[in-house]
Amino acid sequence: MFKAEIKSETLKGLVNIISTLIDEVKFTITPEGMTLKAVDPAHVAMIELKIGAKAFESYSANATEIGLDLDKVKTVLKLAGPGDIVAMEQEESKGRFVFKIGNITRSMSQVETSSMNDPKVPQLSLSANAVMLVDQLQKGIKAAESISDHISLKAGPDMFELSCEGDTDDANLKLTGNDLESLEAPSEVQSLFPLDYFANIIKAIPAGIKIRVELDSDFPVKLVFGLAGGEAQVVYFLAPRIESD
Amino acid sequence: MFKAEIKSETLKGLVNIISTLIDEVKFTITPEGMTLKAVDPAHVAMIELKIGAKAFESYSANATEIGLDLDKVKTVLKLAGPGDIVAMEQEESKGRFVFKIGNITRSMSQVETSSMNDPKVPQLSLSANAVMLVDQLQKGIKAAESISDHISLKAGPDMFELSCEGDTDDANLKLTGNDLESLEAPSEVQSLFPLDYFANIIKAIPAGIKIRVELDSDFPVKLVFGLAGGEAQVVYFLAPRIESD
Amino acid sequence: MFKAEIKSETLKGLVNIISTLIDEVKFTITPEGMTLKAVDPAHVAMIELKIGAKAFESYSANATEIGLDLDKVKTVLKLAGPGDIVAMEQEESKGRFVFKIGNITRSMSQVETSSMNDPKVPQLSLSANAVMLVDQLQKGIKAAESISDHISLKAGPDMFELSCEGDTDDANLKLTGNDLESLEAPSEVQSLFPLDYFANIIKAIPAGIKIRVELDSDFPVKLVFGLAGGEAQVVYFLAPRIESD
Repeated sequence: MFKAEIKSETLKGLVNIISTLIDEVKFTITPEGMTLKAVDPAHVAMIELKIGAKAFESYSANATEIGLDLDKVKTVLKLAGPGDIVAMEQEESKGRFVFKIGNITRSMSQVETSSMNDPKVPQLSLSANAVMLVDQLQKGIKAAESISDHISLKAGPDMFELSCEGDTDDANLKLTGNDLESLEAPSEVQSLFPLDYFANIIKAIPAGIKIRVELDSDFPVKLVFGLAGGEAQVVYFLAPRIESD
Repeated sequence: MFKAEIKSETLKGLVNIISTLIDEVKFTITPEGMTLKAVDPAHVAMIELKIGAKAFESYSANATEIGLDLDKVKTVLKLAGPGDIVAMEQEESKGRFVFKIGNITRSMSQVETSSMNDPKVPQLSLSANAVMLVDQLQKGIKAAESISDHISLKAGPDMFELSCEGDTDDANLKLTGNDLESLEAPSEVQSLFPLDYFANIIKAIPAGIKIRVELDSDFPVKLVFGLAGGEAQVVYFLAPRIESD
Repeated sequence: MFKAEIKSETLKGLVNIISTLIDEVKFTITPEGMTLKAVDPAHVAMIELKIGAKAFESYSANATEIGLDLDKVKTVLKLAGPGDIVAMEQEESKGRFVFKIGNITRSMSQVETSSMNDPKVPQLSLSANAVMLVDQLQKGIKAAESISDHISLKAGPDMFELSCEGDTDDANLKLTGNDLESLEAPSEVQSLFPLDYFANIIKAIPAGIKIRVELDSDFPVKLVFGLAGGEAQVVYFLAPRIESD
């Protein structure tokens, strides 16, 4: 059993983040909230999302699973204006999932979740971490576009740097001092990542959100940020590209 | 002879409605105003439009006909800003039609009207009718998109319903009580219509306009609404799809 | 040596004008400012641009040349918001050109300028000239689109006219009296020009700018206008289409 109400903006924000990685998803439901763990088809990135019951306007559920096609959920969300409340309910008898927005009812078949196994979330201890407004990284991504397919993230004792080197062009964003909320980097570390994955997740995060970037040399980068006023927590891992010397 | 001035917004609104059905049109002109009767090429929908002389800022005409290509008229209307007045004149000698907006003059050949016969407007007595803001139907149309090619309209003693059923998805808009301006439906009636035609006309009507929907089981639906502050009257018929059992 | 700072809006305005004609450009630098002379690949139009040092927030340069790909410069300018200052520097050692906007650094290879010869600017004495807000010409261009490939400019003792004649349609903009800032045309003159070139340059000029149009019969038209608050001066020549009788 699952029945809940949520602000349309909150649901839009969550769907935008997940759909950078996959379209068909399985949510694991408990009385305390929803969780989702997923990797993209190429196994380059992983997302772990925990949405507490407090992220919802109302929430009532037993342990269950929900399988949704996010492309369809996006078309439903286009029916909601700012401030609208979206009511959701799992119809267990018919295997359908029902959205209600005002006097509109929109129901859809659930996608099959039996073959969706939860990936194992890696336990990593990364030596550097920096916290900043995502807006800074969004600027850096924009500067890097069309220069190269990869982006370098570097952290050192007094700076966090995003850079991109092409054959004829370079782009660089250097964050120091007040550009950063916090910075811990005992020594300089650096890794190279695929620009498209990094750009897609960074662009999907709403402006004004603080993001923690955990980094080490030739390790995955771990991005941690909150949504829904902190009631939803996102952890995102992206595999590095190992440069052969 | 035809010579008139009209607000650009008013003319835009009228052209938008007509061009959901046809591109080349014949207006019948009298000293009291203009009328247009037209069916679409597939004979699925019909429009009857009466524009009284009071819909214009100035109007002076003898009995005549005007043949216009609405695609061209739309490009002319893009030259007008909000509040601009469009002056129109039929140049009888050269067969041209001339628009003037400020210091711009734009003239075009008239299209041949001799082969355009006025369709006969059906006299229907439909048992149910409901009046609502077109905004409600616009919401329902949006919810129905990409679910099915057909849309069902249903009226009963206490509700008006628009619904769409696909193989895996359903959408439904239910209007009751204050959602409706008025409702007369002695018994429940329902018909199925092509979604594309219904969506095109409903989307072309400006938000905030009240529309009367006249409905019966397996009969055409009749839509009636005013434009130009009520000085222009539109009647639109759409043929039902008869479901074979 | 070249090092300067400029408002992003000012740089955008200059780049928009030049890139109507060519993508790869050579700027000639002196301590007093920058100049550019260029013809389009088809030799139909020519631009001469002089940007005084006062158009910049700061400016420091010796005689040199800078070769830039304007398509790349446009992507850099997308990183700047309104009010941002763009710092530019020529790195002579590596042949690179560096832009800085806030904490972003974006560097690019310069394009080879050795084969770019300055075209000779024609000295023309044209009998008519008219000064008007470019907005008027922008309206006329819009009315002329999709009617013909050519546009006629005509000046006479009491009017300036832009007109376009197609097989079935005509468009005409007639400026008289207060539509014009000034007008000198001892006798009536007229020339025909390619609409695409004329439309591209006119649309690239910011609304509210005053433009001087110098005209004669079957001669190039000369357009003169200022940018950057008058600190940059643009002269644009467009060859006429000579009508064979």
